[in-house]
Amino acid sequence: MKLKTTALATALIVAGMAWGANLRDEPIQPIAAAKVTNPAMVELGKKLFFDPRLSRSGFISCNSCHNLSMGGSDNLKTSVGDKWQQGPINSPTVLNSSLALAQFWDGRAADLREQAGGPIANPAEMAFTHDLAVGTLRTIPGYVAEFKSVFGSADISIEKVTQAIAAFEETLVTPNSPFDQWLKGDDKALTKQELAGYKLFRDSGCVACHNGPAAGGTSFQKMGLFEPYQTKNPAKGRAAVTGQDEDRMNFKVPTLRNVELTYPYFHDGEAATLEAAVDIMGRLQLGRKYSQAEIADIVAFLKTLTGDQPTFVMPLLPPSSSATPKPDPWAK
Amino acid sequence: MKLKTTALATALIVAGMAWGANLRDEPIQPIAAAKVTNPAMVELGKKLFFDPRLSRSGFISCNSCHNLSMGGSDNLKTSVGDKWQQGPINSPTVLNSSLALAQFWDGRAADLREQAGGPIANPAEMAFTHDLAVGTLRTIPGYVAEFKSVFGSADISIEKVTQAIAAFEETLVTPNSPFDQWLKGDDKALTKQELAGYKLFRDSGCVACHNGPAAGGTSFQKMGLFEPYQTKNPAKGRAAVTGQDEDRMNFKVPTLRNVELTYPYFHDGEAATLEAAVDIMGRLQLGRKYSQAEIADIVAFLKTLTGDQPTFVMPLLPPSSSATPKPDPWAK
Ligand code: HEC
Ligand code: HEC
Ligand code: HEC
Ligand code: HEC
Ligand SMILES: [Ca+2]
Ligand SMILES: [Ca+2]
Repeated sequence: MKLKTTALATALIVAGMAWGANLRDEPIQPIAAAKVTNPAMVELGKKLFFDPRLSRSGFISCNSCHNLSMGGSDNLKTSVGDKWQQGPINSPTVLNSSLALAQFWDGRAADLREQAGGPIANPAEMAFTHDLAVGTLRTIPGYVAEFKSVFGSADISIEKVTQAIAAFEETLVTPNSPFDQWLKGDDKALTKQELAGYKLFRDSGCVACHNGPAAGGTSFQKMGLFEPYQTKNPAKGRAAVTGQDEDRMNFKVPTLRNVELTYPYFHDGEAATLEAAVDIMGRLQLGRKYSQAEIADIVAFLKTLTGDQPTFVMPLLPPSSSATPKPDPWAK
Repeated sequence: MKLKTTALATALIVAGMAWGANLRDEPIQPIAAAKVTNPAMVELGKKLFFDPRLSRSGFISCNSCHNLSMGGSDNLKTSVGDKWQQGPINSPTVLNSSLALAQFWDGRAADLREQAGGPIANPAEMAFTHDLAVGTLRTIPGYVAEFKSVFGSADISIEKVTQAIAAFEETLVTPNSPFDQWLKGDDKALTKQELAGYKLFRDSGCVACHNGPAAGGTSFQKMGLFEPYQTKNPAKGRAAVTGQDEDRMNFKVPTLRNVELTYPYFHDGEAATLEAAVDIMGRLQLGRKYSQAEIADIVAFLKTLTGDQPTFVMPLLPPSSSATPKPDPWAK
């Protein structure tokens, strides 16, 4: 399921079909469990997601920066890339990223397939090239056999690599959070404080931007509506894609699903805690200064958005062969 | 089960008890499946093994260098450590390491518990201190609760941390390899070539050093008996521990279990392929130059030592709290 401009509408229809009349009518909808149509491709994508041989150094995998033991991000302000380079922007979670209207903070990739080619060739991340990555995979007999059985032909291409990774990522959804149980009609799923927090979140207007099943990911919005956001981070946001000055500081609204796990917050990673992030959102996006008690209520609600984390068996990677290029992390 | 000086004898007794009269009488014995007596402690140890918050940067975990998707090592000549430092020596596999008489290439740690404290505080690896690592864990409510339920008290100490990691590592054994099936009496478990390779390995004397259930790990031996080993790596081997000049270039004989997966080879990681390693072993340790066909046979045998890899569900790590120190990988 891909949510584009009609995100909310589609989501409501899907939700309606799946949960019937019991579903509460709210601007956030439950996360649907993953429907795996091609388990063999998902399994291959999982291996690739964990394989450091997709990087120049042989040391960094997708999971290095989107650690699935830690909510799908690295919990650093900005990521550590090839040669310990300091990344330019906070690593967003890959959990539920299939639900977003586009990928990256500025939305420069349309979908997960387009996205997955990016980090492999990004000199500050995996620092490889598509040709070298694919060339490496072609020398690994276990991969050759697996691509053959998944795609019907043993030829490995970057398109197949990104397709398999995207298929794996589409399974990384987190259904069944306490908030979703409440949405589906279970009154006991939220405490009084959590419910009060949700009502404040909804009624003060956070849902204008954080809506849909992912509680975000449905639009690009200006960071700093009522007051400008103070940051040393040079990221321009959506303007980098559109070239339009009015898109400066417009970022994809991040999902709030599992936000308890994806600290630190904002594109620059400068808000260390949820309390800080909520305070800033209130002031900058709504022109409203919340009290400590109100912030505590909203934070309590946000923690109810932590759903079932993907649990899976660690992949076993096929060994290299003597034809496989030997990575040297310190090569010039 | 810890194998010290009486390694071979103990192993034979244990093996005898477990597999009765069918077991072939060979200098290598089957690997026994892990007996988990304290699953909760193993689960805690698994989390710690995967937790980058045990490192100063918040980016490097035990699994970074002992990747359990890749045979328990990193498949690099020497490891990438904190700040992308180049490690001094090849990362050995953690698979079956509980079977060795001591830990590290030079045996400077007596056992896994003593070992596990090392990398956390090693400035070239995780670059933390025991106090800071333990201090970090104490701020993570999920860990506090889990240490309490495993150890009966919520206090976290480095001793408990290393005990839990060691308990997890003790489960990382790889039973059921084709060679073990053959040892237990299954004549069809090895091909003709594999069996010929084993006989050559045994009869030409490799088993003098590579013996016991791990096919190694039972003694320290000089690297370069018949000719000196040429290397730029400054590691002194066992002499670093004993201070005796005659122990120079004495290394713990590495396990050959899963050696197909633990390339590159030797303490300096300079042998890229098994073929190269076998050729060198023949010449330097036995004064014997094998033909290409003989090498191919031995390599075919060595690949039958790949056993069932530990398969387990990726751990989910408990989130940090606002009291948790924020790691900065680029801090001076
Ligand atoms: C060195 C760190 C690093 C590595 C390695 C890395 N990523 Fe990322 N990833 C990031 C950062 C940082 C961003 C945000 C970049 C931006 O928005 O400009 C990102 C963005 C993403 C997004 C978009 C999420 C969103 O909500 O917009 C996805 C999906 C993703 N990465 C998947 C992957 C995959 C798949 C791989 C491996 C092929 C990978 N990443 C490797 C750091 C990394
Ligand atoms: C006008 C749109 C808008 C409104 C209203 C809004 N947000 Fe946001 N929110 C965003 C955008 C855009 C970001 C990303 C900003 C950045 O990273 O620079 C964001 C980021 C966040 C984050 C950090 C997420 C992360 O993973 O980094 C939290 C938490 C959050 N919002 C909560 C709230 C709360 C609570 C409210 C109501 C008080 C709210 N938001 C209102 C647009 C909005
Ligand atoms: C930066 C890389 C790196 C990290 C991180 C790392 N190790 Fe190691 N490990 C090594 C290297 C290199 C050696 C060999 C050092 C030596 O022998 O002098 C080693 C040796 C070992 C050994 C001994 C194996 C044998 O056969 O002698 C064990 C067990 C081990 N590590 C477990 C761990 C655990 C547990 C952690 C986390 C607490 C960890 N390692 C973190 C690189 C690393
Ligand atoms: C006298 C003792 C001795 C004999 C005999 C011996 N080895 Fe070794 N073997 C060692 C030592 C010590 C090392 C580690 C050397 C180093 O890393 O510098 C080693 C390393 C290896 C390795 C690399 C393992 C790794 O993970 O790095 C292989 C493969 C190997 N031996 C195979 C053989 C074969 C095949 C023979 C017979 C031709 C053999 N060995 C004979 C002591 C011996
Ligand atoms: Ca974040
Ligand atoms: Ca090795």
